[in-house]
Amino acid sequence: MKKVTKRINVRYGETDQMGVVYHANYIVYFEDARTAFIESLGFPYKGLEDAGYLSPVVSVTCEYGAPLHYGDEACVVVWVDKLTKAKVTYRYEVYASEDAVGVAKPNAKGESVHCLVEKDTFRPVNMKTASPGLYRAYEAALAEGE
Amino acid sequence: MKKVTKRINVRYGETDQMGVVYHANYIVYFEDARTAFIESLGFPYKGLEDAGYLSPVVSVTCEYGAPLHYGDEACVVVWVDKLTKAKVTYRYEVYASEDAVGVAKPNAKGESVHCLVEKDTFRPVNMKTASPGLYRAYEAALAEGE
Amino acid sequence: MKKVTKRINVRYGETDQMGVVYHANYIVYFEDARTAFIESLGFPYKGLEDAGYLSPVVSVTCEYGAPLHYGDEACVVVWVDKLTKAKVTYRYEVYASEDAVGVAKPNAKGESVHCLVEKDTFRPVNMKTASPGLYRAYEAALAEGE
Amino acid sequence: MKKVTKRINVRYGETDQMGVVYHANYIVYFEDARTAFIESLGFPYKGLEDAGYLSPVVSVTCEYGAPLHYGDEACVVVWVDKLTKAKVTYRYEVYASEDAVGVAKPNAKGESVHCLVEKDTFRPVNMKTASPGLYRAYEAALAEGE
Repeated sequence: MKKVTKRINVRYGETDQMGVVYHANYIVYFEDARTAFIESLGFPYKGLEDAGYLSPVVSVTCEYGAPLHYGDEACVVVWVDKLTKAKVTYRYEVYASEDAVGVAKPNAKGESVHCLVEKDTFRPVNMKTASPGLYRAYEAALAEGE
Repeated sequence: MKKVTKRINVRYGETDQMGVVYHANYIVYFEDARTAFIESLGFPYKGLEDAGYLSPVVSVTCEYGAPLHYGDEACVVVWVDKLTKAKVTYRYEVYASEDAVGVAKPNAKGESVHCLVEKDTFRPVNMKTASPGLYRAYEAALAEGE
Repeated sequence: MKKVTKRINVRYGETDQMGVVYHANYIVYFEDARTAFIESLGFPYKGLEDAGYLSPVVSVTCEYGAPLHYGDEACVVVWVDKLTKAKVTYRYEVYASEDAVGVAKPNAKGESVHCLVEKDTFRPVNMKTASPGLYRAYEAALAEGE
Repeated sequence: MKKVTKRINVRYGETDQMGVVYHANYIVYFEDARTAFIESLGFPYKGLEDAGYLSPVVSVTCEYGAPLHYGDEACVVVWVDKLTKAKVTYRYEVYASEDAVGVAKPNAKGESVHCLVEKDTFRPVNMKTASPGLYRAYEAALAEGE
Protein backbone atom coordinates (compact mmCIF):
# COMPACT_ATOMS: atom_id res chain seq x y z
CA MET A 1 0.00 0.00 0.00
CA LYS A 2 1.00 3.60 -0.59
CA LYS A 3 2.80 5.25 2.32
CA VAL A 4 3.51 8.94 2.63
CA THR A 5 6.10 10.53 4.89
CA LYS A 6 5.50 13.94 6.45
CA ARG A 7 8.28 15.82 8.22
CA ILE A 8 7.26 18.11 11.07
CA ASN A 9 9.43 20.54 13.00
CA VAL A 10 8.55 20.19 16.67
CA ARG A 11 7.58 23.63 17.97
CA TYR A 12 8.66 24.97 21.34
CA GLY A 13 5.05 25.58 22.33
CA GLU A 14 4.27 21.93 21.57
CA THR A 15 6.39 20.78 24.50
CA ASP A 16 5.16 20.79 28.08
CA GLN A 17 6.96 21.00 31.40
CA MET A 18 7.98 17.34 31.16
CA GLY A 19 10.40 18.67 28.54
CA VAL A 20 8.82 16.57 25.78
CA VAL A 21 6.04 16.97 23.22
CA TYR A 22 2.64 17.20 24.93
CA HIS A 23 0.68 14.05 24.17
CA ALA A 24 -2.35 15.69 22.53
CA ASN A 25 -0.08 17.25 19.90
CA TYR A 26 0.59 13.84 18.35
CA ILE A 27 -3.04 13.88 17.27
CA VAL A 28 -2.32 17.16 15.49
CA TYR A 29 0.76 15.63 13.86
CA PHE A 30 -1.45 12.79 12.61
CA GLU A 31 -3.62 15.36 10.89
CA ASP A 32 -0.61 17.01 9.32
CA ALA A 33 0.35 13.65 7.86
CA ARG A 34 -3.19 12.89 6.73
CA THR A 35 -3.33 16.24 4.95
CA ALA A 36 -0.10 15.40 3.14
CA PHE A 37 -1.44 11.96 2.23
CA ILE A 38 -4.71 13.13 0.74
CA GLU A 39 -2.87 15.89 -1.10
CA SER A 40 -0.51 13.28 -2.57
CA LEU A 41 -3.63 11.58 -4.00
CA GLY A 42 -4.53 14.80 -5.78
CA PHE A 43 -7.49 15.53 -3.52
CA PRO A 44 -6.48 18.29 -1.11
CA TYR A 45 -8.80 18.34 1.88
CA LYS A 46 -9.68 21.96 1.16
CA GLY A 47 -11.22 20.86 -2.14
CA LEU A 48 -13.42 18.39 -0.30
CA GLU A 49 -14.80 21.18 1.86
CA ASP A 50 -15.26 23.43 -1.15
CA ALA A 51 -17.37 20.62 -2.66
CA GLY A 52 -19.66 20.73 0.37
CA TYR A 53 -18.26 17.94 2.51
CA LEU A 54 -16.47 17.62 5.83
CA SER A 55 -14.47 14.64 6.98
CA PRO A 56 -14.85 14.50 10.75
CA VAL A 57 -12.89 12.15 12.98
CA VAL A 58 -14.92 9.16 14.16
CA SER A 59 -12.25 7.83 16.48
CA VAL A 60 -8.58 8.18 17.21
CA THR A 61 -6.03 6.15 19.13
CA CYS A 62 -2.41 6.80 19.97
CA GLU A 63 0.20 4.65 21.71
CA TYR A 64 3.22 6.49 23.00
CA GLY A 65 6.80 5.23 23.10
CA ALA A 66 9.96 7.27 23.62
CA PRO A 67 8.97 10.94 23.66
CA LEU A 68 9.68 13.53 20.98
CA HIS A 69 11.67 16.64 21.88
CA TYR A 70 11.94 20.23 20.77
CA GLY A 71 14.51 20.35 18.01
CA ASP A 72 13.40 17.01 16.56
CA GLU A 73 12.28 16.96 12.97
CA ALA A 74 9.57 14.42 13.55
CA CYS A 75 8.65 12.15 10.71
CA VAL A 76 5.16 10.70 10.40
CA VAL A 77 4.59 7.74 8.10
CA VAL A 78 0.93 7.53 7.12
CA TRP A 79 -1.15 5.13 5.06
CA VAL A 80 -4.75 4.09 4.49
CA ASP A 81 -5.38 0.80 6.21
CA LYS A 82 -9.06 0.12 5.60
CA LEU A 83 -11.78 1.50 3.36
CA THR A 84 -15.53 1.09 3.25
CA LYS A 85 -18.18 3.25 1.67
CA ALA A 86 -18.81 4.75 5.09
CA LYS A 87 -15.35 5.04 6.62
CA VAL A 88 -11.68 5.33 5.92
CA THR A 89 -9.04 4.25 8.43
CA TYR A 90 -5.63 5.85 8.51
CA ARG A 91 -2.62 4.49 10.37
CA TYR A 92 0.39 6.47 11.57
CA GLU A 93 3.90 5.87 12.84
CA VAL A 94 5.85 8.77 14.28
CA TYR A 95 9.64 8.82 14.38
CA ALA A 96 11.99 11.36 15.93
CA SER A 97 13.83 11.78 12.63
CA GLU A 98 13.68 10.58 9.05
CA ASP A 99 16.76 8.39 9.63
CA ALA A 100 14.87 6.41 12.24
CA VAL A 101 12.05 5.36 9.90
CA GLY A 102 12.03 1.59 9.48
CA VAL A 103 15.12 1.27 11.66
CA ALA A 104 14.13 2.34 15.17
CA LYS A 105 10.94 1.66 17.07
CA PRO A 106 8.38 4.39 16.37
CA ASN A 107 8.02 7.05 19.07
CA ALA A 108 4.28 6.74 18.66
CA LYS A 109 1.77 4.95 16.53
CA GLY A 110 -1.92 5.37 16.07
CA GLU A 111 -5.00 5.18 13.99
CA SER A 112 -7.85 7.45 13.06
CA VAL A 113 -11.18 6.67 11.44
CA HIS A 114 -13.05 9.24 9.35
CA CYS A 115 -16.39 9.46 7.66
CA LEU A 116 -17.68 11.97 5.13
CA VAL A 117 -20.60 14.24 5.99
CA GLU A 118 -22.54 17.02 4.33
CA LYS A 119 -21.13 20.36 5.43
CA ASP A 120 -24.45 21.91 6.37
CA THR A 121 -26.23 18.98 7.98
CA PHE A 122 -23.36 16.83 9.30
CA ARG A 123 -25.26 13.90 7.73
CA PRO A 124 -22.97 10.99 6.72
CA VAL A 125 -22.75 10.26 3.02
CA ASN A 126 -21.58 7.28 0.99
CA MET A 127 -18.00 8.16 0.05
CA LYS A 128 -18.07 6.05 -3.09
CA THR A 129 -20.97 7.96 -4.60
CA ALA A 130 -20.36 11.38 -3.02
CA SER A 131 -16.69 11.58 -3.96
CA PRO A 132 -16.00 8.75 -6.42
CA GLY A 133 -12.63 10.16 -7.51
CA LEU A 134 -11.31 10.24 -3.97
CA TYR A 135 -12.74 6.79 -3.27
CA ARG A 136 -10.92 5.31 -6.27
CA ALA A 137 -7.73 7.07 -5.22
CA TYR A 138 -8.07 5.49 -1.77
CA GLU A 139 -8.57 2.08 -3.40
CA ALA A 140 -5.50 2.58 -5.55
CA ALA A 141 -3.47 3.66 -2.51
CA LEU A 142 -4.54 0.50 -0.70
CA ALA A 143 -3.68 -1.69 -3.68
CA GLU A 144 -0.34 -0.04 -4.45
CA GLY A 145 2.56 -2.49 -4.58
CA GLU A 146 0.38 -5.55 -4.19
CA MET B 1 -15.21 51.48 35.13
CA LYS B 2 -16.57 47.98 35.43
CA LYS B 3 -13.97 45.28 35.97
CA VAL B 4 -14.58 41.56 35.74
CA THR B 5 -12.37 38.85 37.19
CA LYS B 6 -12.00 35.49 35.45
CA ARG B 7 -10.32 32.56 37.17
CA ILE B 8 -8.49 30.09 34.93
CA ASN B 9 -6.93 26.79 35.92
CA VAL B 10 -3.58 26.54 34.18
CA ARG B 11 -3.53 23.32 32.15
CA TYR B 12 -0.54 21.03 31.95
CA GLY B 13 -0.53 21.27 28.18
CA GLU B 14 -0.35 25.06 28.45
CA THR B 15 3.15 24.88 29.90
CA ASP B 16 6.25 24.43 27.80
CA GLN B 17 9.66 22.98 28.53
CA MET B 18 10.69 26.17 30.35
CA GLY B 19 8.35 24.82 33.04
CA VAL B 20 6.03 27.82 32.76
CA VAL B 21 2.96 28.81 30.77
CA TYR B 22 3.80 29.18 27.07
CA HIS B 23 3.59 32.85 26.13
CA ALA B 24 0.96 32.54 23.38
CA ASN B 25 -1.47 31.03 25.87
CA TYR B 26 -1.83 34.37 27.66
CA ILE B 27 -3.59 35.60 24.54
CA VAL B 28 -6.04 32.72 24.97
CA TYR B 29 -6.50 33.64 28.64
CA PHE B 30 -7.31 37.19 27.54
CA GLU B 31 -10.11 35.78 25.39
CA ASP B 32 -11.44 33.72 28.28
CA ALA B 33 -11.65 36.91 30.32
CA ARG B 34 -13.22 38.88 27.47
CA THR B 35 -15.87 36.19 27.08
CA ALA B 36 -16.67 36.45 30.78
CA PHE B 37 -16.81 40.24 30.54
CA ILE B 38 -19.21 40.39 27.62
CA GLU B 39 -21.35 37.71 29.23
CA SER B 40 -21.49 39.81 32.41
CA LEU B 41 -22.97 42.58 30.26
CA GLY B 42 -25.76 40.23 29.20
CA PHE B 43 -24.44 39.89 25.64
CA PRO B 44 -22.79 36.50 25.31
CA TYR B 45 -20.46 36.46 22.32
CA LYS B 46 -22.31 33.48 20.88
CA GLY B 47 -25.42 35.67 20.58
CA LEU B 48 -23.45 38.21 18.57
CA GLU B 49 -22.47 35.53 16.06
CA ASP B 50 -26.02 34.21 15.95
CA ALA B 51 -27.07 37.76 15.01
CA GLY B 52 -24.73 37.65 12.01
CA TYR B 53 -21.65 39.39 13.35
CA LEU B 54 -18.10 38.45 14.21
CA SER B 55 -15.76 40.40 16.43
CA PRO B 56 -12.27 39.81 15.10
CA VAL B 57 -9.13 40.95 16.84
CA VAL B 58 -7.58 44.05 15.28
CA SER B 59 -4.48 44.02 17.46
CA VAL B 60 -3.14 42.50 20.63
CA THR B 61 -0.26 43.24 22.94
CA CYS B 62 1.08 41.43 25.97
CA GLU B 63 3.84 42.30 28.42
CA TYR B 64 5.16 39.44 30.51
CA GLY B 65 6.33 39.57 34.11
CA ALA B 66 6.89 36.66 36.48
CA PRO B 67 5.68 33.50 34.73
CA LEU B 68 2.57 31.48 35.56
CA HIS B 69 2.95 27.82 36.48
CA TYR B 70 0.94 24.64 36.24
CA GLY B 71 -1.17 24.40 39.37
CA ASP B 72 -1.81 28.15 39.45
CA GLU B 73 -5.39 29.31 39.38
CA ALA B 74 -4.67 32.32 37.25
CA CYS B 75 -6.87 35.32 37.65
CA VAL B 76 -7.46 37.75 34.79
CA VAL B 77 -8.89 41.18 35.53
CA VAL B 78 -10.49 42.64 32.41
CA TRP B 79 -12.15 45.91 31.55
CA VAL B 80 -13.13 48.04 28.56
CA ASP B 81 -10.72 50.90 28.24
CA LYS B 82 -11.85 52.71 25.10
CA LEU B 83 -14.88 52.69 22.85
CA THR B 84 -15.64 54.17 19.46
CA LYS B 85 -18.27 53.25 16.91
CA ALA B 86 -15.62 51.27 15.07
CA LYS B 87 -13.56 49.69 17.82
CA VAL B 88 -13.57 48.53 21.41
CA THR B 89 -10.36 48.24 23.43
CA TYR B 90 -10.05 45.74 26.26
CA ARG B 91 -7.30 45.75 28.87
CA TYR B 92 -6.13 42.79 30.94
CA GLU B 93 -4.07 42.06 34.01
CA VAL B 94 -3.13 38.49 34.80
CA TYR B 95 -2.29 37.34 38.34
CA ALA B 96 -1.08 33.96 39.55
CA SER B 97 -3.92 33.79 42.08
CA GLU B 98 -6.94 35.74 43.16
CA ASP B 99 -5.16 36.78 46.37
CA ALA B 100 -2.54 38.58 44.35
CA VAL B 101 -5.00 40.88 42.56
CA GLY B 102 -4.32 44.50 43.49
CA VAL B 103 -1.57 43.44 45.87
CA ALA B 104 1.20 41.94 43.75
CA LYS B 105 2.53 43.06 40.39
CA PRO B 106 0.57 41.39 37.60
CA ASN B 107 2.29 38.42 35.93
CA ALA B 108 1.22 39.86 32.61
CA LYS B 109 -0.77 42.72 31.22
CA GLY B 110 -2.08 43.46 27.80
CA GLU B 111 -4.58 45.00 25.51
CA SER B 112 -6.69 43.89 22.59
CA VAL B 113 -8.66 45.91 20.08
CA HIS B 114 -11.73 44.52 18.32
CA CYS B 115 -14.06 45.64 15.59
CA LEU B 116 -17.39 44.22 14.51
CA VAL B 117 -17.83 42.75 11.03
CA GLU B 118 -20.56 41.06 9.05
CA LYS B 119 -20.19 37.31 9.34
CA ASP B 120 -20.44 36.59 5.64
CA THR B 121 -18.45 39.46 4.18
CA PHE B 122 -16.00 40.38 6.99
CA ARG B 123 -17.07 44.00 6.27
CA PRO B 124 -16.70 46.30 9.33
CA VAL B 125 -19.92 47.73 10.71
CA ASN B 126 -20.75 50.62 13.01
CA MET B 127 -21.13 48.97 16.44
CA LYS B 128 -23.49 51.66 17.69
CA THR B 129 -26.05 51.03 14.97
CA ALA B 130 -25.41 47.32 14.37
CA SER B 131 -25.62 46.29 18.00
CA PRO B 132 -26.99 49.28 19.95
CA GLY B 133 -27.70 47.25 23.10
CA LEU B 134 -24.13 46.03 23.36
CA TYR B 135 -22.79 49.49 22.59
CA ARG B 136 -24.82 51.02 25.42
CA ALA B 137 -23.68 48.24 27.74
CA TYR B 138 -20.07 49.04 26.84
CA GLU B 139 -20.73 52.72 27.55
CA ALA B 140 -22.27 51.88 30.90
CA ALA B 141 -19.30 49.60 31.76
CA LEU B 142 -16.93 52.47 30.95
CA ALA B 143 -18.93 54.92 33.04
CA GLU B 144 -19.43 52.60 36.01
CA GLY B 145 -18.29 54.07 39.33
CA GLU B 146 -17.49 57.49 37.86
CA MET C 1 -16.49 3.19 41.63
CA LYS C 2 -15.86 6.85 42.31
CA LYS C 3 -16.77 9.20 39.46
CA VAL C 4 -15.83 12.84 39.23
CA THR C 5 -17.46 15.45 37.02
CA LYS C 6 -15.44 18.30 35.54
CA ARG C 7 -17.12 21.24 33.83
CA ILE C 8 -15.22 22.94 31.04
CA ASN C 9 -16.13 26.10 29.18
CA VAL C 10 -15.46 25.51 25.50
CA ARG C 11 -13.10 28.23 24.29
CA TYR C 12 -13.49 29.97 20.96
CA GLY C 13 -9.97 28.99 19.97
CA GLU C 14 -10.82 25.34 20.63
CA THR C 15 -13.21 25.28 17.68
CA ASP C 16 -12.10 24.85 14.10
CA GLN C 17 -13.61 25.92 10.80
CA MET C 18 -16.10 23.04 10.95
CA GLY C 19 -17.72 25.21 13.62
CA VAL C 20 -17.21 22.57 16.31
CA VAL C 21 -14.55 21.67 18.86
CA TYR C 22 -11.36 20.46 17.15
CA HIS C 23 -10.96 16.76 17.82
CA ALA C 24 -7.53 16.89 19.48
CA ASN C 25 -8.92 19.20 22.15
CA TYR C 26 -10.99 16.38 23.63
CA ILE C 27 -7.70 14.82 24.70
CA VAL C 28 -6.95 18.06 26.55
CA TYR C 29 -10.40 17.96 28.16
CA PHE C 30 -9.64 14.41 29.32
CA GLU C 31 -6.58 15.77 31.11
CA ASP C 32 -8.60 18.53 32.73
CA ALA C 33 -10.93 15.86 34.10
CA ARG C 34 -8.05 13.62 35.20
CA THR C 35 -6.49 16.54 37.06
CA ALA C 36 -9.80 17.14 38.87
CA PHE C 37 -10.07 13.43 39.68
CA ILE C 38 -6.61 13.06 41.18
CA GLU C 39 -7.10 16.30 43.11
CA SER C 40 -10.37 14.90 44.52
CA LEU C 41 -8.28 12.01 45.88
CA GLY C 42 -6.11 14.48 47.75
CA PHE C 43 -3.10 13.93 45.49
CA PRO C 44 -2.81 16.92 43.16
CA TYR C 45 -0.68 16.03 40.17
CA LYS C 46 1.67 18.90 40.95
CA GLY C 47 2.57 17.17 44.21
CA LEU C 48 3.51 14.04 42.30
CA GLU C 49 5.97 15.99 40.18
CA ASP C 50 7.33 17.77 43.24
CA ALA C 51 8.02 14.30 44.67
CA GLY C 52 10.16 13.48 41.65
CA TYR C 53 7.72 11.61 39.43
CA LEU C 54 5.98 12.18 36.14
CA SER C 55 2.88 10.37 34.91
CA PRO C 56 3.20 10.17 31.13
CA VAL C 57 0.44 8.94 28.87
CA VAL C 58 1.00 5.40 27.60
CA SER C 59 -1.98 5.40 25.26
CA VAL C 60 -5.14 7.30 24.56
CA THR C 61 -8.31 6.61 22.62
CA CYS C 62 -11.30 8.78 21.81
CA GLU C 63 -14.57 8.00 20.03
CA TYR C 64 -16.50 10.99 18.81
CA GLY C 65 -20.28 11.39 18.69
CA ALA C 66 -22.25 14.60 18.24
CA PRO C 67 -19.79 17.50 18.28
CA LEU C 68 -19.32 20.08 21.04
CA HIS C 69 -19.77 23.77 20.22
CA TYR C 70 -18.48 27.09 21.42
CA GLY C 71 -20.77 28.25 24.21
CA ASP C 72 -21.20 24.71 25.57
CA GLU C 73 -20.24 24.11 29.13
CA ALA C 74 -18.88 20.66 28.49
CA CYS C 75 -19.03 18.15 31.26
CA VAL C 76 -16.51 15.33 31.52
CA VAL C 77 -17.28 12.35 33.75
CA VAL C 78 -14.07 10.56 34.70
CA TRP C 79 -13.23 7.45 36.68
CA VAL C 80 -10.43 4.95 37.22
CA ASP C 81 -11.26 1.76 35.40
CA LYS C 82 -8.22 -0.44 35.97
CA LEU C 83 -5.19 -0.42 38.23
CA THR C 84 -1.99 -2.40 38.31
CA LYS C 85 1.36 -1.63 39.93
CA ALA C 86 2.56 -0.47 36.53
CA LYS C 87 -0.41 1.32 35.04
CA VAL C 88 -3.64 3.13 35.78
CA THR C 89 -6.46 3.35 33.25
CA TYR C 90 -8.86 6.29 33.24
CA ARG C 91 -12.14 6.38 31.35
CA TYR C 92 -14.01 9.48 30.22
CA GLU C 93 -17.42 10.48 28.97
CA VAL C 94 -17.94 13.98 27.59
CA TYR C 95 -21.35 15.66 27.53
CA ALA C 96 -22.37 19.01 26.05
CA SER C 97 -23.87 20.08 29.37
CA GLU C 98 -24.26 18.84 32.91
CA ASP C 99 -27.97 18.21 32.30
CA ALA C 100 -27.12 15.67 29.63
CA VAL C 101 -25.03 13.44 31.92
CA GLY C 102 -26.62 10.02 32.24
CA VAL C 103 -29.55 11.13 30.09
CA ALA C 104 -28.19 11.76 26.60
CA LYS C 105 -25.56 9.81 24.66
CA PRO C 106 -22.10 11.16 25.42
CA ASN C 107 -20.62 13.46 22.79
CA ALA C 108 -17.38 11.57 23.16
CA LYS C 109 -15.89 8.83 25.23
CA GLY C 110 -12.38 7.61 25.69
CA GLU C 111 -9.68 6.05 27.74
CA SER C 112 -6.14 6.85 28.72
CA VAL C 113 -3.46 4.69 30.29
CA HIS C 114 -0.68 6.15 32.43
CA CYS C 115 2.42 4.87 34.10
CA LEU C 116 4.64 6.53 36.67
CA VAL C 117 8.26 7.35 35.86
CA GLU C 118 11.19 8.99 37.58
CA LYS C 119 11.36 12.64 36.56
CA ASP C 120 15.03 12.64 35.66
CA THR C 121 15.40 9.28 33.96
CA PHE C 122 11.88 8.59 32.58
CA ARG C 123 12.35 5.08 34.09
CA PRO C 124 9.03 3.41 35.04
CA VAL C 125 8.47 2.76 38.71
CA ASN C 126 6.12 0.54 40.69
CA MET C 127 3.26 2.84 41.66
CA LYS C 128 2.41 0.83 44.75
CA THR C 129 5.85 1.28 46.30
CA ALA C 130 6.75 4.66 44.79
CA SER C 131 3.53 6.40 45.77
CA PRO C 132 1.65 4.10 48.18
CA GLY C 133 -0.79 6.77 49.29
CA LEU C 134 -1.92 7.50 45.77
CA TYR C 135 -2.11 3.79 44.97
CA ARG C 136 -4.39 3.16 47.95
CA ALA C 137 -6.53 6.13 46.97
CA TYR C 138 -6.87 4.65 43.47
CA GLU C 139 -7.88 1.32 45.02
CA ALA C 140 -10.46 3.03 47.21
CA ALA C 141 -11.82 4.95 44.20
CA LEU C 142 -12.18 1.68 42.30
CA ALA C 143 -13.91 -0.01 45.25
CA GLU C 144 -16.22 2.91 46.07
CA GLY C 145 -19.89 1.95 46.16
CA GLU C 146 -19.24 -1.76 45.69
CA MET D 1 19.54 43.99 7.72
CA LYS D 2 19.27 40.27 7.31
CA LYS D 3 15.76 38.97 6.72
CA VAL D 4 14.71 35.34 6.85
CA THR D 5 11.55 33.87 5.33
CA LYS D 6 9.77 30.96 7.00
CA ARG D 7 7.00 29.08 5.22
CA ILE D 8 4.28 27.57 7.41
CA ASN D 9 1.45 25.28 6.34
CA VAL D 10 -1.70 26.46 8.11
CA ARG D 11 -3.14 23.51 10.04
CA TYR D 12 -6.83 22.73 10.19
CA GLY D 13 -6.76 22.86 13.99
CA GLU D 14 -5.28 26.36 13.80
CA THR D 15 -8.51 27.74 12.37
CA ASP D 16 -11.52 28.62 14.50
CA GLN D 17 -15.21 28.80 13.74
CA MET D 18 -14.76 32.15 11.99
CA GLY D 19 -13.21 30.01 9.27
CA VAL D 20 -9.84 31.71 9.60
CA VAL D 21 -6.64 31.24 11.60
CA TYR D 22 -7.25 31.85 15.31
CA HIS D 23 -5.50 35.04 16.34
CA ALA D 24 -3.28 33.56 19.07
CA ASN D 25 -1.72 31.21 16.53
CA TYR D 26 0.04 34.11 14.81
CA ILE D 27 2.15 34.39 17.95
CA VAL D 28 3.13 30.74 17.43
CA TYR D 29 3.96 31.47 13.79
CA PHE D 30 6.21 34.29 14.98
CA GLU D 31 8.12 31.78 17.07
CA ASP D 32 8.45 29.43 14.12
CA ALA D 33 10.02 32.26 12.17
CA ARG D 34 12.27 33.29 15.06
CA THR D 35 13.50 29.71 15.36
CA ALA D 36 14.36 29.71 11.66
CA PHE D 37 16.12 33.06 12.00
CA ILE D 38 18.34 32.09 14.91
CA GLU D 39 19.12 28.78 13.22
CA SER D 40 20.17 30.69 10.10
CA LEU D 41 22.69 32.51 12.31
CA GLY D 42 24.19 29.17 13.29
CA PHE D 43 22.83 29.33 16.85
CA PRO D 44 19.86 26.99 17.10
CA TYR D 45 17.73 27.86 20.10
CA LYS D 46 18.14 24.34 21.45
CA GLY D 47 21.87 24.98 21.80
CA LEU D 48 21.18 28.06 23.88
CA GLU D 49 19.13 25.99 26.32
CA ASP D 50 21.77 23.28 26.39
CA ALA D 51 24.24 26.01 27.41
CA GLY D 52 22.07 26.84 30.41
CA TYR D 53 20.03 29.76 29.12
CA LEU D 54 16.43 30.46 28.26
CA SER D 55 15.16 33.28 26.10
CA PRO D 56 11.74 34.22 27.46
CA VAL D 57 9.41 36.64 25.75
CA VAL D 58 9.33 40.08 27.39
CA SER D 59 6.54 41.43 25.25
CA VAL D 60 4.70 40.70 22.05
CA THR D 61 2.41 42.69 19.76
CA CYS D 62 0.44 41.69 16.70
CA GLU D 63 -1.67 43.74 14.30
CA TYR D 64 -4.06 41.78 12.14
CA GLY D 65 -5.06 42.49 8.55
CA ALA D 66 -6.80 40.15 6.11
CA PRO D 67 -7.07 36.74 7.78
CA LEU D 68 -5.12 33.61 6.88
CA HIS D 69 -7.02 30.47 5.87
CA TYR D 70 -6.58 26.73 6.01
CA GLY D 71 -4.75 25.69 2.87
CA ASP D 72 -2.58 28.82 2.87
CA GLU D 73 1.14 28.33 2.96
CA ALA D 74 1.79 31.29 5.17
CA CYS D 75 5.06 33.07 4.84
CA VAL D 76 6.63 34.93 7.74
CA VAL D 77 9.40 37.43 7.09
CA VAL D 78 11.46 37.98 10.22
CA TRP D 79 14.37 40.19 11.16
CA VAL D 80 16.14 41.61 14.19
CA ASP D 81 15.20 45.24 14.60
CA LYS D 82 16.97 46.29 17.79
CA LEU D 83 19.70 44.91 20.01
CA THR D 84 20.99 45.84 23.43
CA LYS D 85 22.97 43.82 25.94
CA ALA D 86 19.71 43.12 27.73
CA LYS D 87 17.20 42.63 24.96
CA VAL D 88 16.70 41.70 21.36
CA THR D 89 13.69 42.86 19.34
CA TYR D 90 12.36 40.82 16.46
CA ARG D 91 9.89 42.07 13.86
CA TYR D 92 7.57 39.95 11.73
CA GLU D 93 5.41 40.26 8.65
CA VAL D 94 3.04 37.46 7.77
CA TYR D 95 1.80 36.88 4.23
CA ALA D 96 -0.74 34.37 2.92
CA SER D 97 1.76 33.07 0.39
CA GLU D 98 5.35 33.55 -0.68
CA ASP D 99 4.21 35.34 -3.85
CA ALA D 100 2.59 38.05 -1.76
CA VAL D 101 5.81 39.02 0.07
CA GLY D 102 6.76 42.59 -0.77
CA VAL D 103 3.82 42.88 -3.15
CA ALA D 104 0.64 42.67 -1.07
CA LYS D 105 -0.09 44.17 2.32
CA PRO D 106 0.95 41.75 5.08
CA ASN D 107 -1.88 39.76 6.68
CA ALA D 108 -0.33 40.51 10.03
CA LYS D 109 2.70 42.20 11.47
CA GLY D 110 4.17 42.22 14.90
CA GLU D 111 7.10 42.46 17.22
CA SER D 112 8.51 40.49 20.10
CA VAL D 113 11.15 41.41 22.64
CA HIS D 114 13.30 38.78 24.34
CA CYS D 115 15.86 38.71 27.08
CA LEU D 116 18.27 35.98 28.12
CA VAL D 117 18.01 34.38 31.54
CA GLU D 118 19.75 31.63 33.47
CA LYS D 119 17.79 28.40 33.10
CA ASP D 120 17.69 27.55 36.78
CA THR D 121 17.13 30.97 38.32
CA PHE D 122 15.34 32.91 35.54
CA ARG D 123 17.84 35.73 36.34
CA PRO D 124 18.50 38.02 33.35
CA VAL D 125 22.03 37.97 31.98
CA ASN D 126 24.04 40.26 29.74
CA MET D 127 23.71 38.71 26.29
CA LYS D 128 27.00 40.15 25.10
CA THR D 129 29.01 38.41 27.79
CA ALA D 130 26.83 35.32 28.30
CA SER D 131 26.61 34.40 24.65
CA PRO D 132 29.13 36.56 22.76
CA GLY D 133 28.92 34.50 19.56
CA LEU D 134 25.18 34.94 19.30
CA TYR D 135 25.46 38.63 20.16
CA ARG D 136 27.95 39.19 17.35
CA ALA D 137 25.73 37.24 14.98
CA TYR D 138 22.82 39.50 15.90
CA GLU D 139 25.02 42.56 15.29
CA ALA D 140 26.05 41.20 11.90
CA ALA D 141 22.41 40.47 11.02
CA LEU D 142 21.50 44.05 11.90
CA ALA D 143 24.37 45.46 9.86
CA GLU D 144 23.85 43.22 6.82
CA GLY D 145 23.47 45.14 3.55
CA GLU D 146 24.21 48.53 5.11
